[in-house]
Amino acid sequence: MESNKFAIDTIDTGNNQHPLEQLQTISDQTGLKLKDEKFARLMDERDPLHHLRKEFHVPTMSQILYTDPKLVSPDDDCIYFCGNSLGLCPKMAKDYVLVEMDKWATRGVQGHTTGALPWVECGELLEEDMTKIVGCKREEVAVLNSLTVNLHFLLISFYRPSKERYKIMCESKAFPSDHYAFESQCRLHGFNPEDALICLEPREGEFTLRTEDILAAIEREGDRLALVCFSGVQYYTGQFFDIPAITKAAQAKGCQVGFDLAHAVGNLPLYLHDWNVDFACWCSYKYLNAGAGAVAGIFVHERYRDNTFPRLLGWWGHKLATRFVMDNNMELIPGARGYGVSNISGVLCAQLKASLEIFNKTSMEELRRKSLLLTGYLEALIKQEYSRPAGKSVEEDGDAIYIDLFSPSDPAQRGAQLSLAFNISVENVFKELEKRGVVILTRVEVELQVGEVKSKYFVFCAVF
Amino acid sequence: MESNKFAIDTIDTGNNQHPLEQLQTISDQTGLKLKDEKFARLMDERDPLHHLRKEFHVPTMSQILYTDPKLVSPDDDCIYFCGNSLGLCPKMAKDYVLVEMDKWATRGVQGHTTGALPWVECGELLEEDMTKIVGCKREEVAVLNSLTVNLHFLLISFYRPSKERYKIMCESKAFPSDHYAFESQCRLHGFNPEDALICLEPREGEFTLRTEDILAAIEREGDRLALVCFSGVQYYTGQFFDIPAITKAAQAKGCQVGFDLAHAVGNLPLYLHDWNVDFACWCSYKYLNAGAGAVAGIFVHERYRDNTFPRLLGWWGHKLATRFVMDNNMELIPGARGYGVSNISGVLCAQLKASLEIFNKTSMEELRRKSLLLTGYLEALIKQEYSRPAGKSVEEDGDAIYIDLFSPSDPAQRGAQLSLAFNISVENVFKELEKRGVVILTRVEVELQVGEVKSKYFVFCAVF
Ligand SMILES: Cc1ncc(COP(=O)(O)O)c(C=O)c1O
Ligand SMILES: Cc1ncc(COP(=O)(O)O)c(C=O)c1O
Repeated sequence: MESNKFAIDTIDTGNNQHPLEQLQTISDQTGLKLKDEKFARLMDERDPLHHLRKEFHVPTMSQILYTDPKLVSPDDDCIYFCGNSLGLCPKMAKDYVLVEMDKWATRGVQGHTTGALPWVECGELLEEDMTKIVGCKREEVAVLNSLTVNLHFLLISFYRPSKERYKIMCESKAFPSDHYAFESQCRLHGFNPEDALICLEPREGEFTLRTEDILAAIEREGDRLALVCFSGVQYYTGQFFDIPAITKAAQAKGCQVGFDLAHAVGNLPLYLHDWNVDFACWCSYKYLNAGAGAVAGIFVHERYRDNTFPRLLGWWGHKLATRFVMDNNMELIPGARGYGVSNISGVLCAQLKASLEIFNKTSMEELRRKSLLLTGYLEALIKQEYSRPAGKSVEEDGDAIYIDLFSPSDPAQRGAQLSLAFNISVENVFKELEKRGVVILTRVEVELQVGEVKSKYFVFCAVF
Repeated sequence: MESNKFAIDTIDTGNNQHPLEQLQTISDQTGLKLKDEKFARLMDERDPLHHLRKEFHVPTMSQILYTDPKLVSPDDDCIYFCGNSLGLCPKMAKDYVLVEMDKWATRGVQGHTTGALPWVECGELLEEDMTKIVGCKREEVAVLNSLTVNLHFLLISFYRPSKERYKIMCESKAFPSDHYAFESQCRLHGFNPEDALICLEPREGEFTLRTEDILAAIEREGDRLALVCFSGVQYYTGQFFDIPAITKAAQAKGCQVGFDLAHAVGNLPLYLHDWNVDFACWCSYKYLNAGAGAVAGIFVHERYRDNTFPRLLGWWGHKLATRFVMDNNMELIPGARGYGVSNISGVLCAQLKASLEIFNKTSMEELRRKSLLLTGYLEALIKQEYSRPAGKSVEEDGDAIYIDLFSPSDPAQRGAQLSLAFNISVENVFKELEKRGVVILTRVEVELQVGEVKSKYFVFCAVF
């Protein structure tokens, strides 16, 4: 290897230099054009996280559906851009699942207290690893249930409206499940969501919410707000909200603040404790790669460790030492674990464990460094090849294809997802990508898988 | 085979003849004593469900922990009496789980819409089979989440207290998780559980609640009761409550009636629709053999198909056809499915599917016939060998061992579980049983696994 000076890990992405500039510097130094496949391959070679890719099953072109054999080589890896919907399968997941299945087959009920993941505490055993991903203390996190279920359980505690202060502020394009959760929680307390739910819209002609506008809205509506609940990363636009600023502003007005981190967790570093967030919840089937319907997680700030808010209790929130005394005297586990309700599947925990062990081989900061370059690289190529001439509309326009990015162009305000708008039929774009083995979501967006499976994208961008 | 006239399937257990008498008749006809191992083996041979045993992994003596190699043969099956805690693993479970794991590995997100259990509808696909087990119509059942989680979601709808009518009636020994759920739901609505929760105690000196006393209590307290919520089969005593009578009495007083069927489902036939139950919930890791933390089920009577009760909503309750339009306009699925909140694990559904397919090879009525004989047989042997002389207390008493049955002695009032009290230390009994490869729960009870894996017990009883 000639020189390492432009290896990804030597690039300080903590500074204000835009990833595009960094990529340009490397391009200048190597004399390789960005769109030259050699450039992408070189970036892969120099990628300090490249070895983690092999920890995942990447489906091949022939394994996934709808590829056109005339356009792809059957044994090549597919181009998986769908980590924001379902992360790829860690290779160890099957092994760990089989351990739990075999334990069930060979030990029956004794599996509750034996083996790598004794089922009575399989959730707990993953929480230490989870703290590193969301940036919190041990007691602040719990692994349990699923996302919307947990959101409701947390809202029962943290949304405590009074006659004067009863509103919930959220994004206008909150994820549907969250939106339904908010609406139904308003109704539960006798409020009409039309009145009680404030859904912030981006400014006319804009796709993403400006932080200043969010803060101004909190300032304006604050006295009537019981709760501010945003996503960490917006599922549609990929916008990374300014969690600490929103938290601070909302708390200054006396509101509770929660975040749905479905698209943020495992995507970029989070510091929930330091950011002073009140509560948060997430799923682990996206960037956390734990499989569809995987066991989810919650964060409850340590100041609520012994809270006496309303709660929906269950025996899995009871201290383990005395849980099976069965005398119906609740001894609540302090902290997030106290929100435990039902026992948890060891098999689902096995899936999550397989993924967390890969995260343990790196850090969210390291992943973020790579992610910024990857996303920046795709953006650079798209801009280079498909920029819409100023003044042209996003309409059909002869043969020319234009792509508008509607994720924030500031890398600090987005995660690993780029959401794109086309001047041609998105269905056609989607079909053509499918034929070429590019797995994306059918919404008007193209997504980037963050983390360990992403190095492919350099290549993808080059061969696009 | 000489004669089939005493085969289990020819015995009408629907009549009032006690299983003990039936067993005695067979004993007389064959000239084999009940405690003769040959009797047990003959019963096994004639058991029309015997072939279903091979559908399960029965752990061997050497696979389970704590057996004493001097007392057991390593390759013999263990004596698994713990189906009321965790059902044994159906042999197909691993295969079906691997199908889902492989789909994830080879197709990623495309697994949501492809394969045997497309993840977007894997819960729905099991509901038809579930209707046969709980006795209800298609729209009345949903497969989702876990038990206590579902109980809370149902209580949010069905426990709607007013100032006058706010109490919940339950058993004094309700399962801890249910007890905590009731308490916390009372508090959620601003009531003190000390006042709002009526926990029915058995009469002095009795272990089980008399139906007449339950009905009298409902009659007495009815005007203050918002909800009556019992288990179907009591986890501690094995008592099978008279669900239709309780339902009718409570509804006559204007209360909602729900049942926790954790220990009833897959144990004995249920007819939730005909019994007119308002709502019910259950787990599927006990007699339903779907594995620890398995996906659970709910029943909501069809008259509430379009109910406008308070609910905690999520996107998995949204009609599938338009669920992914993501326009945040809720189109609720009618019936139980509308209680769907979060997406469900295909892997967990695979586990349940493996078990439901075995149930499909028989019927709850057929299982019940066998179960009555099995339980009756164990009871007969215990009575024969360990009856406590009248007047003797349940205390330590020299070398004599006495066993008191505190499950109902009327077979119609119990499921597959016999709960036993000993005049010697239960820990010692437990340890001695463990050495002999008898897997039971550590509470003061011995349990019978119902269903497909139970034929062993004839043998077990004989070699005890
Ligand atoms: C009667 C009953 N109710 C509730 C539960 C709690 O179940 P889960 O942990 O699945 O919520 C159990 C578990 O054994 C039970 O037996
Ligand atoms: C932002 C967000 N919130 C909530 C959900 C709903 O998740 P679940 O079905 O696990 O409750 C999702 C699922 O994709 C999501 O992306």
